[in-house]
Amino acid sequence: MNIFSVQAINAVLDKDEVIQAVKQSFIEKEQGLATCPSPMQILFNNDENQLVADCHVKAAQNKNSDFFVIKVASGFYENKHKGLPVNNGMSLLMSASTGAPVALFQDEGLLTSMRTAAAGAISTALAQHINENSVLGVIGTGHQALLQAQWVCHLTGIRKVVVQGRNYQSALGFAEAFPLAHVECWAVHDNKELAVLSDAIVTTTPATAPLISLNDIKKPMHIVAMGADSPGKQELDPELLEAAEVIVTDDHHQCLAHGEFGIACRAGLINEQTDVALGKVLAKPSENKISGTGISIVDLTGVGTQDLAIASYVWRKLSRHHT
Amino acid sequence: MNIFSVQAINAVLDKDEVIQAVKQSFIEKEQGLATCPSPMQILFNNDENQLVADCHVKAAQNKNSDFFVIKVASGFYENKHKGLPVNNGMSLLMSASTGAPVALFQDEGLLTSMRTAAAGAISTALAQHINENSVLGVIGTGHQALLQAQWVCHLTGIRKVVVQGRNYQSALGFAEAFPLAHVECWAVHDNKELAVLSDAIVTTTPATAPLISLNDIKKPMHIVAMGADSPGKQELDPELLEAAEVIVTDDHHQCLAHGEFGIACRAGLINEQTDVALGKVLAKPSENKISGTGISIVDLTGVGTQDLAIASYVWRKLSRHHT
Repeated sequence: MNIFSVQAINAVLDKDEVIQAVKQSFIEKEQGLATCPSPMQILFNNDENQLVADCHVKAAQNKNSDFFVIKVASGFYENKHKGLPVNNGMSLLMSASTGAPVALFQDEGLLTSMRTAAAGAISTALAQHINENSVLGVIGTGHQALLQAQWVCHLTGIRKVVVQGRNYQSALGFAEAFPLAHVECWAVHDNKELAVLSDAIVTTTPATAPLISLNDIKKPMHIVAMGADSPGKQELDPELLEAAEVIVTDDHHQCLAHGEFGIACRAGLINEQTDVALGKVLAKPSENKISGTGISIVDLTGVGTQDLAIASYVWRKLSRHHT
Repeated sequence: MNIFSVQAINAVLDKDEVIQAVKQSFIEKEQGLATCPSPMQILFNNDENQLVADCHVKAAQNKNSDFFVIKVASGFYENKHKGLPVNNGMSLLMSASTGAPVALFQDEGLLTSMRTAAAGAISTALAQHINENSVLGVIGTGHQALLQAQWVCHLTGIRKVVVQGRNYQSALGFAEAFPLAHVECWAVHDNKELAVLSDAIVTTTPATAPLISLNDIKKPMHIVAMGADSPGKQELDPELLEAAEVIVTDDHHQCLAHGEFGIACRAGLINEQTDVALGKVLAKPSENKISGTGISIVDLTGVGTQDLAIASYVWRKLSRHHT
């Protein structure tokens, strides 16, 4: 088994290639080529029974692939008080014909971050009204929020980003440190202000209660929600989903189980057939896939097929380097 | 992260210590200290839609442990035609306080085999009528069947093993190659013959239809069934469970989902409250736990807490060696 460090992995990652691989994985999932079992969740509570950490295991296989993947991604939220990174993890690529381990990527969560960033960028670029003159709103100031802003700007050509965080200070810090010189990034005080300024909003927080409501936003509005990846998490007011013209899900069952989509379904505001698969939208020939004058929402929970796509891509690059 | 080869792992394994660790894991599971999420199953079908391989991912945490485990075990049944081992896998031990990877055991399925062998031996030794003068019946002639025979003889002192396989030739091969010099091992032609001779029967096959029926066996009879670890697998006639005085399960939910216990429940022959947890039986102070003159059955599906126990045990031994 080949074992690769996060440094070796990082050295071969190319944004456009990752975006292409992840996009293809959603399409192949919708075609029934790529499949994945239900994710495994290991939850850690402290003595007061509060959730302090989680570890997700995701897996996938693909009829077109020689490999299958088992991916581990953990978030230990108290690590930040210990000076340690919150996210960690690794990916294991195995032979789909013999079960033999092929490669272990000690990516410390990097591949999960990257395939998530790619999915967010692809999802944001879906809306017809989004172009290089649009303003991107980012709710969240963490590692994935920063990646989202960078990858969306990269893919769409957007040069204006507005950010809002748990407090103004963190949003200000995010804006001041924003690394893309050609992109203007500024902080706002609240989500209302952010919603007025933005043409698309990406939410990447661990919130457990709605961050934006229907009254706050102008139309057309395209929202990509990716924070809710476990039961109990929530970023959007379910009324937003009720009012939406289009709801796109990365995985119908996962979004029903613990995404924004499931919350709105359980609230009785929409029915379980309301969503359209991201892979179906991406398979359409036109470049900008979602047209409309109203609200469109993409609910992302993170799918094993993305993990297989990025691990296979990295293996192709690294095994070529090795020979 | 420390990475250990199967050779390094094998060098530190001690049967009695593994048995003790696995026994304790069942007790702590029953006490609510050790918990595990539902296992993940990745199934591989050939072009004719027949199952040709499976990969199980199991995980566990324990309030008394500094670690949690994610364990991968695969069975690629066509490997035997390729001259490759059918089983493969690895165990990943991670810090329960930071999520950081601690040790990767490239065990190629060894730790899964060993913790399964330990569970089978512990379970066989539970019945009061089993002692060193008993005869052990083994159905199955594979790797795990051999381990079961060895580990049961080791734990109980049994010196007579009778074996039955898919055909007489494989049973004969098993008996002739049986490695314990002080144990007499002989092959029989069918399960009826085996059932008449045996005081306890261990079944370790990938069967999908019953191998023993109620009419075949004498009483008292203690049966340990461990083949059924995925939906569709079955080794016992459900009537055996209906007739049993005691049904012990390693995990109520797993046995209900894909064990012999679940098959009998779904057939309406027993109700879902019929079983008693293996950990509960093991926690009893007396040495021989199941008394009776009738039929007793232990249904084993393999539990993540066993994987945590054996991986933690191996890490304790290996990290001591390293310092």
